[in-house]
Amino acid sequence: MGELKRKEYEELVEPLRRELSHAARWIAETGQRLVILFEGRDTAGKGGSIDMFASTLNPRQCHVVALPAPTERERGQWYFQRYIPHLPARGEISLFDRSWYNRAVVEPVMGFCTPEQTSSFLRAVPEFERDLVEDGIFLFKYWLCCDQDKQEARFKARLANPTRRWKLSPVDIEARSRYQAYTDARERMLEATHSPWAPWSLVDFNDQRLGRLTLLRDLLDRLPDRELPLPTIDWPPLDHEPLREEYRTLRPIAPYAAGP
Amino acid sequence: MGELKRKEYEELVEPLRRELSHAARWIAETGQRLVILFEGRDTAGKGGSIDMFASTLNPRQCHVVALPAPTERERGQWYFQRYIPHLPARGEISLFDRSWYNRAVVEPVMGFCTPEQTSSFLRAVPEFERDLVEDGIFLFKYWLCCDQDKQEARFKARLANPTRRWKLSPVDIEARSRYQAYTDARERMLEATHSPWAPWSLVDFNDQRLGRLTLLRDLLDRLPDRELPLPTIDWPPLDHEPLREEYRTLRPIAPYAAGP
Amino acid sequence: MGELKRKEYEELVEPLRRELSHAARWIAETGQRLVILFEGRDTAGKGGSIDMFASTLNPRQCHVVALPAPTERERGQWYFQRYIPHLPARGEISLFDRSWYNRAVVEPVMGFCTPEQTSSFLRAVPEFERDLVEDGIFLFKYWLCCDQDKQEARFKARLANPTRRWKLSPVDIEARSRYQAYTDARERMLEATHSPWAPWSLVDFNDQRLGRLTLLRDLLDRLPDRELPLPTIDWPPLDHEPLREEYRTLRPIAPYAAGP
Amino acid sequence: MGELKRKEYEELVEPLRRELSHAARWIAETGQRLVILFEGRDTAGKGGSIDMFASTLNPRQCHVVALPAPTERERGQWYFQRYIPHLPARGEISLFDRSWYNRAVVEPVMGFCTPEQTSSFLRAVPEFERDLVEDGIFLFKYWLCCDQDKQEARFKARLANPTRRWKLSPVDIEARSRYQAYTDARERMLEATHSPWAPWSLVDFNDQRLGRLTLLRDLLDRLPDRELPLPTIDWPPLDHEPLREEYRTLRPIAPYAAGP
Repeated sequence: MGELKRKEYEELVEPLRRELSHAARWIAETGQRLVILFEGRDTAGKGGSIDMFASTLNPRQCHVVALPAPTERERGQWYFQRYIPHLPARGEISLFDRSWYNRAVVEPVMGFCTPEQTSSFLRAVPEFERDLVEDGIFLFKYWLCCDQDKQEARFKARLANPTRRWKLSPVDIEARSRYQAYTDARERMLEATHSPWAPWSLVDFNDQRLGRLTLLRDLLDRLPDRELPLPTIDWPPLDHEPLREEYRTLRPIAPYAAGP
Repeated sequence: MGELKRKEYEELVEPLRRELSHAARWIAETGQRLVILFEGRDTAGKGGSIDMFASTLNPRQCHVVALPAPTERERGQWYFQRYIPHLPARGEISLFDRSWYNRAVVEPVMGFCTPEQTSSFLRAVPEFERDLVEDGIFLFKYWLCCDQDKQEARFKARLANPTRRWKLSPVDIEARSRYQAYTDARERMLEATHSPWAPWSLVDFNDQRLGRLTLLRDLLDRLPDRELPLPTIDWPPLDHEPLREEYRTLRPIAPYAAGP
Repeated sequence: MGELKRKEYEELVEPLRRELSHAARWIAETGQRLVILFEGRDTAGKGGSIDMFASTLNPRQCHVVALPAPTERERGQWYFQRYIPHLPARGEISLFDRSWYNRAVVEPVMGFCTPEQTSSFLRAVPEFERDLVEDGIFLFKYWLCCDQDKQEARFKARLANPTRRWKLSPVDIEARSRYQAYTDARERMLEATHSPWAPWSLVDFNDQRLGRLTLLRDLLDRLPDRELPLPTIDWPPLDHEPLREEYRTLRPIAPYAAGP
Repeated sequence: MGELKRKEYEELVEPLRRELSHAARWIAETGQRLVILFEGRDTAGKGGSIDMFASTLNPRQCHVVALPAPTERERGQWYFQRYIPHLPARGEISLFDRSWYNRAVVEPVMGFCTPEQTSSFLRAVPEFERDLVEDGIFLFKYWLCCDQDKQEARFKARLANPTRRWKLSPVDIEARSRYQAYTDARERMLEATHSPWAPWSLVDFNDQRLGRLTLLRDLLDRLPDRELPLPTIDWPPLDHEPLREEYRTLRPIAPYAAGP
């Protein structure tokens, strides 16, 4: 069975996007808070999944959180401290492009933290997440999976495509030779942090389009019933002919014309 | 002449995206700072233009700034104060989805500020922008234009489409009857703030795809020469067969299956 | 037995301040983090106690956290969220002038939160504090007590003294008639949150100077042994006569001269 | 003429504190914003001056801003960017313990910035301050002066006193041999930044207590007339005997008892 074609994907995703819109309206109107963590192997498809959400939702409601490396001062704080200001307020959605789970997988595999720091993180995280869930936050944790042949093919595509080159970081290159170590670290993380109140969902992203549909469908199924009638909006006709732009100070720049 | 078709647009935008990627790499490697303000009429196409940038660029380099309404405390601060923390650091790009220019157009047209506040803003903004530009920030200000018949058609499309409904705010609805007031406020703003160091560019977004191409081409032309050779990356073959995912704790959830 | 005289207090506090300085140096040099919560009845003496610390310690190491009322957006966040950015980084000390315990006493007594919010807070706080303590933060919680006759006398002094008037808020005035409700709320709080990892200390502030000494002595006794030799600093004599200020642009303003 | 004695100082400062309280109330009630920059030589007396303000004023109104060294990311931002979030909101007072003027004196004298950075700062600062003043902020800039013999004596006192040792930084020690360079840098700064809208005041702090009185008197004289009647507060007697603390869960810890 081959991968999902773009056209087919677009037909399938459209009704899901519509459901997502409804869910977002329910979140806004009833003051819910939603956190989605996107974790997984490099190239698995975190970015594309986040785009699927972000391009559907109101940027004033839905924030993508992609933190840079911690500063020296942040390194000396409670590990969760720099993430917490980005948790959603009432009615908001936070999409974490990587998250506190850096300390469970990338950092130990790459040697960016000590084994003790990882162990201590793995002990602390279930309680931390319980605090959030008990406070009423909806917390979903997705791990995106792919086999190494897919990963290699996607790395090569990035290497070849200048607009994708920024996706190829030195860490990625190093990650190629540590595929198995990532697997092992992930399994250890799952054992320690797959809790009843904040379970993990693994999603197969060997086919990225199918993976996105799977992830979104899963999310929608796990949110509570959330149908709200669309408000009717009174829409009187204009009481004059539509107006046109008038330029008194500056005129628009010349429209783009493709080369000769 | 009809509007640009999607396929045609995609062919035309691809080389521009590539140039944008190069420019972003130049910004990162030479430590530049880039600010782009997206202003314009409702429905003109700010969101789609920002997506064109955001989906091409590294989210750790390029931040979309879409601030909520100011808090009571913020309302009592220097007007620019809440925008300034979002200015880019070295190597970064900030895309402002609306900006300090709220005070020049939306706020006075909608009665959210006093005429004195707008006048005082219009006097202050050229100096403020000069401070930024003299500090070395690249500042581009785009105003997206469209005629009212286009605006009406787009409003109606939002009204009909549940996934676009969030784009239809009460302010938008009110804006329908104030098309001319927007024009007048914009003209006053241009007179006061189209400065040699921070000029405005108006872009015709009656055809949104063409507008995006026009805007991006203009931006690229106005950035300094920025060709940097792509770094060569050493890419040895794997020294083993590609590995596969192994699941010892949890298995991936069932893939999405459409229909009954 | 009368209250401690100022001169007597100053003699007694001096050696404690010295110990506190040593402790602060130990905190800085070994990268500890110290949090002290100051809670208690109005007029008990929180401000004076905090000043005792703040005037001894380096303001770049020791931060006083006195948060304003939450914004509307903050009210819709995880209750602890707005406090967490103020937790200390490595080597730092945070003094909380009131804290998350607002929700246990002042808010319910004054009707600023629902009984459910207080109950939910009281259930959540031990786990939250455990997270901090397990991360290695030193957390001390002091509750300052005083009888109502003292409170009345101090309120009256504030009423009479214009420089103290700001200390007399509408909440204070209301608090007069709710002395017993404060007691009851405090007792409930102690039952719920006096945990082995984050115990409360009540300190009698009927005599404020004695209270400050008691609090500081207690804190010092509960910090681990922390003697570090003072670094020797090489201090060569100046190789020239001491210089004098020279004024070439502006001269100092005229010194203060009292009365006519 | 000798230095002001403590008792004498306390008698003189008391009425000034009272005036300061009135001014602070005027600021709060009329929604003014006040910024005071404290700059000057090491040991001149910035800390003590700030304490004089901070111990008189409501910490929820009056914030001391003592920023740590900039992070790497902050170093790549607009130079003023990290200071701006600390500007006061309506009704607030910000006391800057050192300020953006670091770049004019300490940094160039100590070699922490390039000569070009200082020159560029000196060119930019008058416009930046004009932006603030035109926005209605009251901005006062004090430079505290002292001769080198006083500085030497104070350094030695810090060296001898463990509770003052933190005030003796490596930069201070280095500063001893650069007294004249500080003078020269200050003079250059005054020439460039003593503007009509944001003038400097130099204050002689060879006698620190007198210096504090001078500074405070000057500030009070330059604020607009600000007498507001103290609100009368209704103060009914308690309708019961004053209550006493009751301890049902924990008892207060034993009061401090000095040595054996």
